[in-house]
Amino acid sequence: MSDELHDTDNLPAALTSTPTSRRGFLRTASMTALGAGALVACGKASVAEAASEASTSPAGPPPAPLSPRAAADAMDAMHEKGIKAFPAKTEGKGNQIMAPRIEKGVKVYDLTAKVVQWELEPGRTAEAWTFNGVVPAPQIRVKEGDRLRINLKNELPESTSIHFHGLELPNDQDGVPFITQPPIKPGDSYVYEFTVPNAGSHMYHSHHNSAKQVSMGLLGAIIVEPKDKSGEPKVDVDYVLILNDGAHGFTLNGKSFPATEPIVAKLGQKVRIRYMNEGMMIHPMHLHGMHQTVIAKDGWPQPQPWKCDTLNIAPGERWDVIVNCNNPGTWAFHCHILPHAESEHGMFGMVTALIVQK
Amino acid sequence: MSDELHDTDNLPAALTSTPTSRRGFLRTASMTALGAGALVACGKASVAEAASEASTSPAGPPPAPLSPRAAADAMDAMHEKGIKAFPAKTEGKGNQIMAPRIEKGVKVYDLTAKVVQWELEPGRTAEAWTFNGVVPAPQIRVKEGDRLRINLKNELPESTSIHFHGLELPNDQDGVPFITQPPIKPGDSYVYEFTVPNAGSHMYHSHHNSAKQVSMGLLGAIIVEPKDKSGEPKVDVDYVLILNDGAHGFTLNGKSFPATEPIVAKLGQKVRIRYMNEGMMIHPMHLHGMHQTVIAKDGWPQPQPWKCDTLNIAPGERWDVIVNCNNPGTWAFHCHILPHAESEHGMFGMVTALIVQK
Amino acid sequence: MSDELHDTDNLPAALTSTPTSRRGFLRTASMTALGAGALVACGKASVAEAASEASTSPAGPPPAPLSPRAAADAMDAMHEKGIKAFPAKTEGKGNQIMAPRIEKGVKVYDLTAKVVQWELEPGRTAEAWTFNGVVPAPQIRVKEGDRLRINLKNELPESTSIHFHGLELPNDQDGVPFITQPPIKPGDSYVYEFTVPNAGSHMYHSHHNSAKQVSMGLLGAIIVEPKDKSGEPKVDVDYVLILNDGAHGFTLNGKSFPATEPIVAKLGQKVRIRYMNEGMMIHPMHLHGMHQTVIAKDGWPQPQPWKCDTLNIAPGERWDVIVNCNNPGTWAFHCHILPHAESEHGMFGMVTALIVQK
Repeated sequence: MSDELHDTDNLPAALTSTPTSRRGFLRTASMTALGAGALVACGKASVAEAASEASTSPAGPPPAPLSPRAAADAMDAMHEKGIKAFPAKTEGKGNQIMAPRIEKGVKVYDLTAKVVQWELEPGRTAEAWTFNGVVPAPQIRVKEGDRLRINLKNELPESTSIHFHGLELPNDQDGVPFITQPPIKPGDSYVYEFTVPNAGSHMYHSHHNSAKQVSMGLLGAIIVEPKDKSGEPKVDVDYVLILNDGAHGFTLNGKSFPATEPIVAKLGQKVRIRYMNEGMMIHPMHLHGMHQTVIAKDGWPQPQPWKCDTLNIAPGERWDVIVNCNNPGTWAFHCHILPHAESEHGMFGMVTALIVQK
Repeated sequence: MSDELHDTDNLPAALTSTPTSRRGFLRTASMTALGAGALVACGKASVAEAASEASTSPAGPPPAPLSPRAAADAMDAMHEKGIKAFPAKTEGKGNQIMAPRIEKGVKVYDLTAKVVQWELEPGRTAEAWTFNGVVPAPQIRVKEGDRLRINLKNELPESTSIHFHGLELPNDQDGVPFITQPPIKPGDSYVYEFTVPNAGSHMYHSHHNSAKQVSMGLLGAIIVEPKDKSGEPKVDVDYVLILNDGAHGFTLNGKSFPATEPIVAKLGQKVRIRYMNEGMMIHPMHLHGMHQTVIAKDGWPQPQPWKCDTLNIAPGERWDVIVNCNNPGTWAFHCHILPHAESEHGMFGMVTALIVQK
Repeated sequence: MSDELHDTDNLPAALTSTPTSRRGFLRTASMTALGAGALVACGKASVAEAASEASTSPAGPPPAPLSPRAAADAMDAMHEKGIKAFPAKTEGKGNQIMAPRIEKGVKVYDLTAKVVQWELEPGRTAEAWTFNGVVPAPQIRVKEGDRLRINLKNELPESTSIHFHGLELPNDQDGVPFITQPPIKPGDSYVYEFTVPNAGSHMYHSHHNSAKQVSMGLLGAIIVEPKDKSGEPKVDVDYVLILNDGAHGFTLNGKSFPATEPIVAKLGQKVRIRYMNEGMMIHPMHLHGMHQTVIAKDGWPQPQPWKCDTLNIAPGERWDVIVNCNNPGTWAFHCHILPHAESEHGMFGMVTALIVQK
């Protein structure tokens, strides 16, 4: 892993030198895993074969099988390349805090739902349905009692809506077409406006044709700070981590390893991680080296904090944890459903790191 | 959504006017989802195509593609029809409290295991294996310390048995063929009799060839009220909600949306929901508009109540929650694994509503 | 079920008398279940057909269909055979406590990673990747503050490493190739050495090509007893139960029912079960007859114990529970995802029993 977080200048060269590319394989592996057959597929795909193919010209005779050691070296080289590439640069970054306009005391956010091409990891780009062109959508951070207005312009080819998942809003702001509002047609605009109710880690996402629209990227975080902060833990890093497993494969904040973002803290600091699952599967997130202290579920404080190292996060859930960064080093941090995180060709998908700097 | 809960008189006409029927699609979608490929399938199924097909005669020339707005309108119309049909009338209603006969102080329940045709939603009927012809089976409500007798007549083509899941019974009443009793052969009868032990939200279901028999419908709730009710919350509505995902697709109390039953309460009332998962998958149940306070797991009180809006319920688990109905309106209430709840053709499967009336 | 736990002498004869063998079917069923299609497959596979085929010569005319009662008898006979065979003898037993060598105060464990043939249930053997030839690996039991050394010899055809899942080690002992150490090449050896940090129920497993290597068997338990035992429950049986669902199908401690091991206790005794999930799926473990009191998550005490009868265990998680054995008898104990535990041909996979002897 590079000391400098973005020193990935030599990444494309490294990867393009392998005709049977790591990236192509991973795209396939990720899709296969959705059908729960990933492991079997991995078991049959021979790294030795892949490496042999990589070392001969396409038109040449069938290659001789590699020796076990050479096959192991070939596999390890792919693993190493992935890790050395981390964190890999890609176009676009989602989940960044968006500053509102203030209009007569109202915090106003302008969102446009639109289709873009989204780079998931170097060289792997897919169609994404987004708010403001990014996956996850811009992060909204407000306070209990704030007056909030969302101007939504729909530039998608389908109708849409926004549900503020976790906020206890008046019914007409709940965002469910034909139950609380009409669908917002392509080309139309719609305004949500409300006083922010309950504090906590919440989400906003499409609630129309949602199995497709959320999978394609119409999702983001809305974090509500409490009026009374006396019960809030004091932390040095406050990090929102959105898990997904839909049309874009296995992602953390809209990117797949090695393009995921490490969390960086200094020794002795405290990190708050706000997990959110926008996918269709559970993801038990395992942090190496330090435990996680669970403090809230769906924005509500747990009656007493409790500790774990692997926290199971189901679709629609949010969990807030605190990590006491008392163990220096670069720590793997990944979903522990292993086919969501590693294949014979190296780590991919739902992998990142917590870097505790001395 | 109709103000009158059962005003669905015009439903059949509405649906049959769509040659590519919403219902036909959903049946397929539900089955595909069991193979975890639902979303991809949805992504490829073109609503525009379906709508185009619907607007031309089968023998006519290939239709011109719809404009984006017309395609959106066609999709939205399917969504609207589903929601307007809710709660749709169907034949048969399970999970209703069954009154026992009293014989010399013993509460006696007569159950017949038999095969019936079961209407899951309007126009979709499937073979079901049932106790007394309904899915879920009749709800049994008894008290700690009651003497209980179950007379079971087996009219199925297979042997069967009943396991009282959660009750700490004497071993010979546990219902596991070849471990605690012989299987009950087709045509035979069997008697379970015991003093009701631990209180709480429990289940009864077949424990023979159970992956098939439970999936087909041999399941129901047994609720045991505690002798000492001082620790019980006072509620206005006490609702058992059984989740399933087997041979009948994604169901709530044996029905698929729009034939699911809404929970209805008045503003200010308290609702107790007793979740039970009789399926093979987790179902994180998300309530809009209000949080859920978790008070018990598998019939045992949690040490302290805790709050959430999305509660993950695994197969075999029961969770009891309280909802304080302080937010008026019709609130979507659904599994947050989105392909269990919505497709391009609208909501289906594990969707219902909590209606809080002013 | 046999009174004598290992009285299975007549098992092979019993099974080989069934031409359409139970074992062959289960192997298939287990693999199919990984693709989530098990139930559908079961629904279509006709026991009557299987039984009919079994009763005629392969070259004979198509058999007459069995009467319902004869079909039920044929199915029940397969169920009975499985249960009567339990606990079936197989070659090899994993998860047994390994005594260390002591070298100058250091507890030294010698592990060899190697490929073996592993018997999963009578007559079903598969390639396994193991530490010391057994699945799960030898159980390591140490104390907080112990000095521990692991000498690992890699005789696999791939590179490997060991991650001590749950232990808060110095970074260079964390076992992640290219992040904290080089991969250990085929034929090479490697030494891990550290002072044992946090107490609790932990795991050790490969962290290289792990989706394959862990699935194939490179996993085991490391139990760390606390220095201060005042908070530890006093128990009569301390049992580690490792769940897996990978290349070997659905297993408990490396074996499939009926070759799983029952837990045996006397009436009035307390059993501590340390669940560990090394698979890719959740497994909600349901104990009949008695509840489970949950005391720890991932080795960390829960703030307050809580009760359940079905505990959902996600990949990478460990949960410690106490069972008060106050109900005599042989109690089914199984994953409640029913297709992980039973098919038309009887119980298989993730089933065992808790036997409470008077």
